[in-house]
Amino acid sequence: MTPQSEDFSAWYNELVFKAELVDRGPVRGTMVIRPYGYRIWELLQADIDRRIKETGHDNAYFPLLIPESYLQREAEHVEGFSPELAVVTHAGGKELEEPLVVRPTSETVIGEMMAKWISSHRDLPMLLNQWANVVRWEMRPRMFLRTTEFLWQEGHTAHSDEADAMRETLLALDLYAKVAREIAAMPVVDGEKTPGERFPGAQRTYTVEGMMRDGRALQSGTSHYMGTNFAKAFNIQYTAQSGELEYCHTTSWGMSARMVGGVIMTHGDDKGLVLPPLLAPYQVVIVPIGRGEQAEQVLPSARELAERLRRAGIRAHLDNRPQLSPGFKFNDWELRGVPVRLELGPRDLAEGSALMSTRLGEGKTPVSLDSAPARLQFELDAMQSLLLRRATDFRDSLTATVNTWADFAEAVKTGWALAFHCGEPECEDEIKAATSATPRCIPAEGPAEEGLCVRCDQKSAYGKRLIFGRAY
Amino acid sequence: MTPQSEDFSAWYNELVFKAELVDRGPVRGTMVIRPYGYRIWELLQADIDRRIKETGHDNAYFPLLIPESYLQREAEHVEGFSPELAVVTHAGGKELEEPLVVRPTSETVIGEMMAKWISSHRDLPMLLNQWANVVRWEMRPRMFLRTTEFLWQEGHTAHSDEADAMRETLLALDLYAKVAREIAAMPVVDGEKTPGERFPGAQRTYTVEGMMRDGRALQSGTSHYMGTNFAKAFNIQYTAQSGELEYCHTTSWGMSARMVGGVIMTHGDDKGLVLPPLLAPYQVVIVPIGRGEQAEQVLPSARELAERLRRAGIRAHLDNRPQLSPGFKFNDWELRGVPVRLELGPRDLAEGSALMSTRLGEGKTPVSLDSAPARLQFELDAMQSLLLRRATDFRDSLTATVNTWADFAEAVKTGWALAFHCGEPECEDEIKAATSATPRCIPAEGPAEEGLCVRCDQKSAYGKRLIFGRAY
Repeated sequence: MTPQSEDFSAWYNELVFKAELVDRGPVRGTMVIRPYGYRIWELLQADIDRRIKETGHDNAYFPLLIPESYLQREAEHVEGFSPELAVVTHAGGKELEEPLVVRPTSETVIGEMMAKWISSHRDLPMLLNQWANVVRWEMRPRMFLRTTEFLWQEGHTAHSDEADAMRETLLALDLYAKVAREIAAMPVVDGEKTPGERFPGAQRTYTVEGMMRDGRALQSGTSHYMGTNFAKAFNIQYTAQSGELEYCHTTSWGMSARMVGGVIMTHGDDKGLVLPPLLAPYQVVIVPIGRGEQAEQVLPSARELAERLRRAGIRAHLDNRPQLSPGFKFNDWELRGVPVRLELGPRDLAEGSALMSTRLGEGKTPVSLDSAPARLQFELDAMQSLLLRRATDFRDSLTATVNTWADFAEAVKTGWALAFHCGEPECEDEIKAATSATPRCIPAEGPAEEGLCVRCDQKSAYGKRLIFGRAY
Repeated sequence: MTPQSEDFSAWYNELVFKAELVDRGPVRGTMVIRPYGYRIWELLQADIDRRIKETGHDNAYFPLLIPESYLQREAEHVEGFSPELAVVTHAGGKELEEPLVVRPTSETVIGEMMAKWISSHRDLPMLLNQWANVVRWEMRPRMFLRTTEFLWQEGHTAHSDEADAMRETLLALDLYAKVAREIAAMPVVDGEKTPGERFPGAQRTYTVEGMMRDGRALQSGTSHYMGTNFAKAFNIQYTAQSGELEYCHTTSWGMSARMVGGVIMTHGDDKGLVLPPLLAPYQVVIVPIGRGEQAEQVLPSARELAERLRRAGIRAHLDNRPQLSPGFKFNDWELRGVPVRLELGPRDLAEGSALMSTRLGEGKTPVSLDSAPARLQFELDAMQSLLLRRATDFRDSLTATVNTWADFAEAVKTGWALAFHCGEPECEDEIKAATSATPRCIPAEGPAEEGLCVRCDQKSAYGKRLIFGRAY
């Protein structure tokens, strides 16, 4: 495999196929998610879904096909999505009277339904979420990161006023930051997008941004406050306690299977994937040592060990493929990022132990079979923390606070720059043209500071420094 | 609401909207699944998914958009699905060189990928499943039962020989029968379809058929043995142990959100939904009695009771909408099919009890608050069993073993007929034209018997009686 340092992009593209996470779909830009990749997504999904439900949202499902005219009702929305639409013109053997777009996102159709379902302030807030596939025609596809069809969840909520809608927008942002940090071990930075980077139709857009091991940023989840834009376009109104008819304030927020790409590029190394234990399809793989009669001797104990680990809540897998050597298996599971490997041979068995190696460690350590479940859970927890710490250190080491254009240009070659900006979209464009870097966000936790724009020396606009970086 | 006896179809159509299970999508034939309806589907999904994984299948995801030419590779398949296809002709602002169909089912694209992934007998069996939306243009839509887009799972597997593929086909059929009986309390009959009712491209098709309360049959899950039809069309080959190159034998099987419609029509009554406890979004609803100060007095205890029930694993919901009367709430939850209702007023509280009524019972019974979790779990289990028993009795009472055409025609007016058939597709067509009834299946459990075709007096073809009925 190409080393990361030589060509990060080639490393990624080779790895996702070699680790059997994905394959190319027959239509340009589409992706097949293979079982090992899909299991990572399912583990992420389960965690996101739990948090969404715990915060009072209900899942629902809205149609895939949307009348083209719906998108046109919100001017910025249609402008933003038109170039990416896939359009159904024929169905049931006939040409359709009105073409249908395959949803690129569901604000419009959900807006239409909310208008029907909401009448009184008692119906608010309306807190909905949908797990779905969406289609955005992709010219430069990249597995998990940009594909013509992708899987995501999209939250859509309606509120009586701006304050309540903004609370929701930030609640979703916080939920994403926690998913990224606690499950994916990605130390994302959360903050608001500049106006030029907003979602089409949104009044404010928030994001969580992760740093990949090549120093680039990955937008990993976004949350939008729509103001009354969609409420006006779709007539989402309610009768207030005062008796007045008012427009709702709406939000939307999404996190997608792109996160799987984020996990790969945050933790992976030249040997392959490194999966955070909470997202690893197999947390522990047991490799029996010895062939023929020796294997016969070891297998029953290996099976029993796997069963004991599973009962303790650990995702354990016994690799008993008879035709493959232990060495081949070691490399295979290393490539596929399994956190902990256990070797079990006749000699280990005689000593009542197994040989443990972790995906990040160097040597092998004997582990007593009796206490294996507790010991392995400890190792898995430790690795989960270590990955977050390691990624945080990496991000911090590649984030520079800069005040001059020269330092800025240097910093964004390898990582992120914390810099002042004037807030002018044209100036953002110039920076992008010169360095490929864009403003990733106005970090929520950044201290209040004033200064001069790193590019044009005008007064800074946001009361704090922005994060700039090249992005996926 | 229209009573079932007056117009079953009107009863169903009114109920799915009134109970807030669904709404109409903007595109003809599409459906919005609202939170209460989606939760029923999620509960079903979780159970199906668990069983699919436990039997060794892996989830994966394949693209929504399929090149039109793929469908054409299997002659019967394209003939079966062509009239129902939705076709994308434009994308990314351009006309496409080759039109893409929105998947009506995924045999073709999965066949293409299996051909790539399978090379040796060691790669077999390959056991995949996908949760997805599919689109089949629907001329006579009906909520949950026939909609232009629907949600389902589709299993797709490849095997080295017919015996192994047939084992899989029947394993999936058994899985569906268990889901229907154990979770949905639907006493389905499992069996093989006659050749005229096979899936397009299948060599054998199996089904589970439920009887709805109007005596009609609902096909509730199907499992297909494809022989080598798709393997030949997509070149799914493997090297056998002998070194020979062989075609795989494939299967596919699907169960969909149509099952939610099946649950409604199997158990519902003139008062509304009757949900089997295992599929009820809320198994127990607590209605506090009294307004103003009285409510203040009762609410903390009601909250605590709900919390205790939840901790015991019961899906409990406290209905504390202040603007609605208890009577309104009783009707509302009755309509929505909640298995058990608990009323909690100041007097009940003083006596340390709550008043329980079940969705099927008549009166109210006091239940001690102390032992409420155990008592309610007992009631829920009892209702789950009772619903299956009641539906079984109903089905049996409307299933007649018939030998004459007159008895046949009478039986299929209100239910099912067990009858001999000659096996000729033309004779099936005649029966359908005369009575609207079709052969639902050759029941797996039916005793071996020979006789004369109920329609044409020719010798019976299947070695046993078929089930005939009108179907959804």
